[in-house]
Amino acid sequence: MSFNTFGHLFRVTTFGESHGPAIGCVVDGCPPRIPLTAEEIQHDLDRRRPGQSRFTTQRQEADAVKILSGVFADPDSGAQVTTGTPIGLLIENTDQRSKDYGDIAGKFRPGHADFTYEAKYGIRDYRGGGRSSARETAMRVAAGAIARKIVPNLIVRGALVQMGPHRIDRDKWDWDEIARNPFFCPDKDKAAFFEDYLDGIRKKGSSIGAVVEIVAEGVPAGLGAPVYGKLDSDLALALMGINAVKGVEIGAGFGAAELTGEDNADEMRMGNDGPMFLSNNAGGILGGISTGQPVVARIAVKPTSSILTPRRTIDRDGHDTEISTKGRHDPCVGIRAVPVGEAMVACVLADHYLRHRGQVG
Amino acid sequence: MSFNTFGHLFRVTTFGESHGPAIGCVVDGCPPRIPLTAEEIQHDLDRRRPGQSRFTTQRQEADAVKILSGVFADPDSGAQVTTGTPIGLLIENTDQRSKDYGDIAGKFRPGHADFTYEAKYGIRDYRGGGRSSARETAMRVAAGAIARKIVPNLIVRGALVQMGPHRIDRDKWDWDEIARNPFFCPDKDKAAFFEDYLDGIRKKGSSIGAVVEIVAEGVPAGLGAPVYGKLDSDLALALMGINAVKGVEIGAGFGAAELTGEDNADEMRMGNDGPMFLSNNAGGILGGISTGQPVVARIAVKPTSSILTPRRTIDRDGHDTEISTKGRHDPCVGIRAVPVGEAMVACVLADHYLRHRGQVG
Amino acid sequence: MSFNTFGHLFRVTTFGESHGPAIGCVVDGCPPRIPLTAEEIQHDLDRRRPGQSRFTTQRQEADAVKILSGVFADPDSGAQVTTGTPIGLLIENTDQRSKDYGDIAGKFRPGHADFTYEAKYGIRDYRGGGRSSARETAMRVAAGAIARKIVPNLIVRGALVQMGPHRIDRDKWDWDEIARNPFFCPDKDKAAFFEDYLDGIRKKGSSIGAVVEIVAEGVPAGLGAPVYGKLDSDLALALMGINAVKGVEIGAGFGAAELTGEDNADEMRMGNDGPMFLSNNAGGILGGISTGQPVVARIAVKPTSSILTPRRTIDRDGHDTEISTKGRHDPCVGIRAVPVGEAMVACVLADHYLRHRGQVG
Amino acid sequence: MSFNTFGHLFRVTTFGESHGPAIGCVVDGCPPRIPLTAEEIQHDLDRRRPGQSRFTTQRQEADAVKILSGVFADPDSGAQVTTGTPIGLLIENTDQRSKDYGDIAGKFRPGHADFTYEAKYGIRDYRGGGRSSARETAMRVAAGAIARKIVPNLIVRGALVQMGPHRIDRDKWDWDEIARNPFFCPDKDKAAFFEDYLDGIRKKGSSIGAVVEIVAEGVPAGLGAPVYGKLDSDLALALMGINAVKGVEIGAGFGAAELTGEDNADEMRMGNDGPMFLSNNAGGILGGISTGQPVVARIAVKPTSSILTPRRTIDRDGHDTEISTKGRHDPCVGIRAVPVGEAMVACVLADHYLRHRGQVG
Repeated sequence: MSFNTFGHLFRVTTFGESHGPAIGCVVDGCPPRIPLTAEEIQHDLDRRRPGQSRFTTQRQEADAVKILSGVFADPDSGAQVTTGTPIGLLIENTDQRSKDYGDIAGKFRPGHADFTYEAKYGIRDYRGGGRSSARETAMRVAAGAIARKIVPNLIVRGALVQMGPHRIDRDKWDWDEIARNPFFCPDKDKAAFFEDYLDGIRKKGSSIGAVVEIVAEGVPAGLGAPVYGKLDSDLALALMGINAVKGVEIGAGFGAAELTGEDNADEMRMGNDGPMFLSNNAGGILGGISTGQPVVARIAVKPTSSILTPRRTIDRDGHDTEISTKGRHDPCVGIRAVPVGEAMVACVLADHYLRHRGQVG
Repeated sequence: MSFNTFGHLFRVTTFGESHGPAIGCVVDGCPPRIPLTAEEIQHDLDRRRPGQSRFTTQRQEADAVKILSGVFADPDSGAQVTTGTPIGLLIENTDQRSKDYGDIAGKFRPGHADFTYEAKYGIRDYRGGGRSSARETAMRVAAGAIARKIVPNLIVRGALVQMGPHRIDRDKWDWDEIARNPFFCPDKDKAAFFEDYLDGIRKKGSSIGAVVEIVAEGVPAGLGAPVYGKLDSDLALALMGINAVKGVEIGAGFGAAELTGEDNADEMRMGNDGPMFLSNNAGGILGGISTGQPVVARIAVKPTSSILTPRRTIDRDGHDTEISTKGRHDPCVGIRAVPVGEAMVACVLADHYLRHRGQVG
Repeated sequence: MSFNTFGHLFRVTTFGESHGPAIGCVVDGCPPRIPLTAEEIQHDLDRRRPGQSRFTTQRQEADAVKILSGVFADPDSGAQVTTGTPIGLLIENTDQRSKDYGDIAGKFRPGHADFTYEAKYGIRDYRGGGRSSARETAMRVAAGAIARKIVPNLIVRGALVQMGPHRIDRDKWDWDEIARNPFFCPDKDKAAFFEDYLDGIRKKGSSIGAVVEIVAEGVPAGLGAPVYGKLDSDLALALMGINAVKGVEIGAGFGAAELTGEDNADEMRMGNDGPMFLSNNAGGILGGISTGQPVVARIAVKPTSSILTPRRTIDRDGHDTEISTKGRHDPCVGIRAVPVGEAMVACVLADHYLRHRGQVG
Repeated sequence: MSFNTFGHLFRVTTFGESHGPAIGCVVDGCPPRIPLTAEEIQHDLDRRRPGQSRFTTQRQEADAVKILSGVFADPDSGAQVTTGTPIGLLIENTDQRSKDYGDIAGKFRPGHADFTYEAKYGIRDYRGGGRSSARETAMRVAAGAIARKIVPNLIVRGALVQMGPHRIDRDKWDWDEIARNPFFCPDKDKAAFFEDYLDGIRKKGSSIGAVVEIVAEGVPAGLGAPVYGKLDSDLALALMGINAVKGVEIGAGFGAAELTGEDNADEMRMGNDGPMFLSNNAGGILGGISTGQPVVARIAVKPTSSILTPRRTIDRDGHDTEISTKGRHDPCVGIRAVPVGEAMVACVLADHYLRHRGQVG
């Protein structure tokens, strides 16, 4: 959980810059003998891949992932499975368009990490944002594809629930709609609206923020730990660390601030399948430990900082100047945050599942 | 960052239950030769201590902290200073009223961690909530008092900015008001309003949620690290881990979801003292690294789950039943979350300050 | 595994100086519902306690341990058991004789950590060695007493197998002898010899080194992990970290350097109870993972640096001077290293047992 | 420090199997703006590379390392330097001879990790030893090449000081000899002797153990930390984790067990350049903290377990059988342990250098 690694027993370490030779990932601590193929990981990666609609950056990369280690033929089934040793993953960068980086090399783009990397390290790989590029999130999705296989019966799904000031109608929530529109939007009507709305923003070279909701079903009660290894703490860490995320909430979230104790407390009854909650303001987590209800998290994603309109800034030499960003960019990065958010939640749950098994058996 | 420890170079480990013999804390990694007395820590503890107004639990404890290790007379000044070895802190529990715990021993209080601790461990210390009691946060405040001394010129202050649906008027923000009302509220008029409002809630035996804002000034640019050691990730982890917190946001936070790229990006100009930002939607953090602007975080605190109105629940044996909570409780736990939030932010900043110094010098 | 914490899932954090108010320990990650009383921990502490024979320091302290948290009455049996939350342990320092520390305050005792603490921190608690005192090892023994209960059927025993140049006769090894002499020596005849031998050293105010062997039986095959979480790596870390230890070896250890591949390899046969090894040069560990054979480690303990004979040194001001150490000291610290070594091995095995269960189930 | 990662601020994570597509490494936490080229890393790798004399395995691989991330042109000098982001390294496996693995697939080779991997995971990549192959150590050497650049003026050198029962004459120690013989032996005469001696062993298809000494000069006083972050603890962890190592000692090591306190304590005098020690039994470390003297560690390396003589073993199905190992193997793996040991020591020192700078400044 330091610098470029996260997780404790299920640990993910990534490396790579947007325009370097490759990005990669090491997934350590995966249980052995879990079936795993590059195709399965690729399936998740393809959901995140840019260039699939006019609403995401037009960068065209196959993003073909290779498994470099940690898998072998199962002695019984012969299928390719994990061996318990670290799984090395690699995606070569193939679409590093050669171009003049002069402007972003010398100037700090507002809203981007240009100034802060420079302030910290005295140097930055400015090509495509270097390490701070959203391209790194491809490896998170890859790791998440492995994580999803660890907790039995776990289903982690995400949805875009707000774009700019426009919220979906939660009564129209239909998970099947997610795959039918380019926004991962569960409300069919709002998806149709977003089509026009985002086109307008895209044509102006502008961008807009969004809210994404991640729901994990099949989470057994008991995951998480007091008091600094709470499940919601680790979810907050993982989700806030996604590029452009500025807020994380669990269950009722900021809405809980407006509730009374009577309204907020999720009452319980004994159901046929065991303890049952009559509501889920807790978002599936009480005292940092899962309740067995769906874990529900939401993230606020700021608008893409790369926009056509010139913005005031300074250059490396400390002179006032302006900058505008041309080229391939997402008008709403919140869209592609959906599969990334799912992946982060899956990784945290896998880690806590193994940690719980370690301590409690 | 596992179970009951957080931080990397500045590390805090706590132990203790609400009604056990004592609660304690080990602060490891503190730089040597920093002046430190129990009185200074006590000063911060007293700000959090219950029983100071009718708006916090009437539990009466001196909460007197003892320093058990890690300090010694400075060879030059003779003042008591840190030695670089672990600082052990202890607060004895003196107000563990002997009473019948029958009801909470056998039933799960909705909104509390009773059910989840039981689901995880098969056992829980039910007295006063045991490990999940807010009492543990005293040790966070104690650790925070040490952390505040590590980053030069750091000032971390918190304020209650919303109670229930009622938000303060940000134009009336006056830090000096914080100490003048029992709510840590920076808006004098709203504080007066809260007095009546919360009294009404308290008299009904009800409770209400709140939003707390923490502002850290004097944070040098460059703290934080890509991509899983981001300053905002670690703040989210630390703040979401405070009891009753259901949401964390940085800078514009969830508001950023409604902004366009033009409005969100904080433009820059060269000022007399170096780079200057014309706004702070980023909340002082870009790409996970501090910008030099104030770091601004907000947390949503749910209403106290302990209320007089009976709520439906089940007991340990799986039978439907009801429970209501009598006794000493905060009608708005958000109030006491203010010093706790400050402490967590201070600890995260101290840790990142040392980590940055380690890597970059 | 940083500064004053070790272990991953079974984590031990200690604090406290030799002559401060108390020393303490937090054991985190212990599985729930393990029976645990202070008396059981005390039993192990008493084996390490000084002042039990003329061959250990005459410091007289009850070393009475208190459990401050993490235990509660089991809901079924009513016995005191662990709850899964952190176990806080405390021993108050009662025998801090008030005396003039002038000499060791200003001078660096050769062989002690005086100079290095000063070089690192610019300050040190010189009273009784402060943090570097062997007194800290009491908390390791306390943690080890808990660790011993985690791996089913685990037996960890230690023995002094060499004092100065004198080795025991391994053919005379009798575990029952350990408790019958003040040296934890398994060779009755050599124990008798040590009685005279060490008396001579003691009377001269001198000291002597020793070798201690720790044997863990009941370690299941499969504990440990490639390639930086090896069981032998973690044992080496834990054992080398004991005060005065200068060497660690596993199985044949340094003797393996003299062997051929034919002689070193432990051949296998199928036994009635499963795979069986015909020798144990590996010391129970191959490729960093336990084989199911006894885990065997040896540590070299240097002679106590506190001796009567004056030694040349320098003072804090950089002047040449001399120092000799009067007062209570062990003529052979290797003796008390036996229970400490056992405790460290037990902690490492408990940690790896939980980690293995986490990853592999 | 878990599974396949080690270090705290300077962190190394490796992945890859002997006969998979590639092995790789992520070095995280490296300070920025340190000049670094693949050629420099390659230089160290070439010292470890097999096939350079008849005394190491005849596997022929270029072991050409690629830097995939974490470097960029310095804004001032234009030279390729580190950026502070993770450095990804990759070596493709090119000499994976296609052959029948039938024998080692089904049988457990004594002295190898075959049985233990199987016992732990229920599966193992048996090709060339998979993850337990010494091939992994190439990545340690690569990481060490980076680590060497972090502590100013640090020189880490290793030497083979014993082969089988034959020790070098320490009076003949000449560092320049190291590069002149295929054994990294600093004693010219003994090197000549080893030439014949090892040839005899090699021709019989046998193998022999060795002792390697690593000396680090230029280590500033003050690195390391009480009491579980000791410099010698971390060295022990790092060195014991090298394939085939069965013992680690610091300074006088096991020899210290035979010394009296008078002989063991390194006396001090004030020298022209500051505090000076008159001997170095401590091996440059007291109380877990460096003294400023050279850090001296020795490791015992067992003989290669792959030998021609058939050994008794069992197969996966639990039947008694025999196995002998044909093909390319080192008659004395201790030789190639020299650059690996140097690398591990360099990594530990770099990590502690950064950790010290973090805490103390």
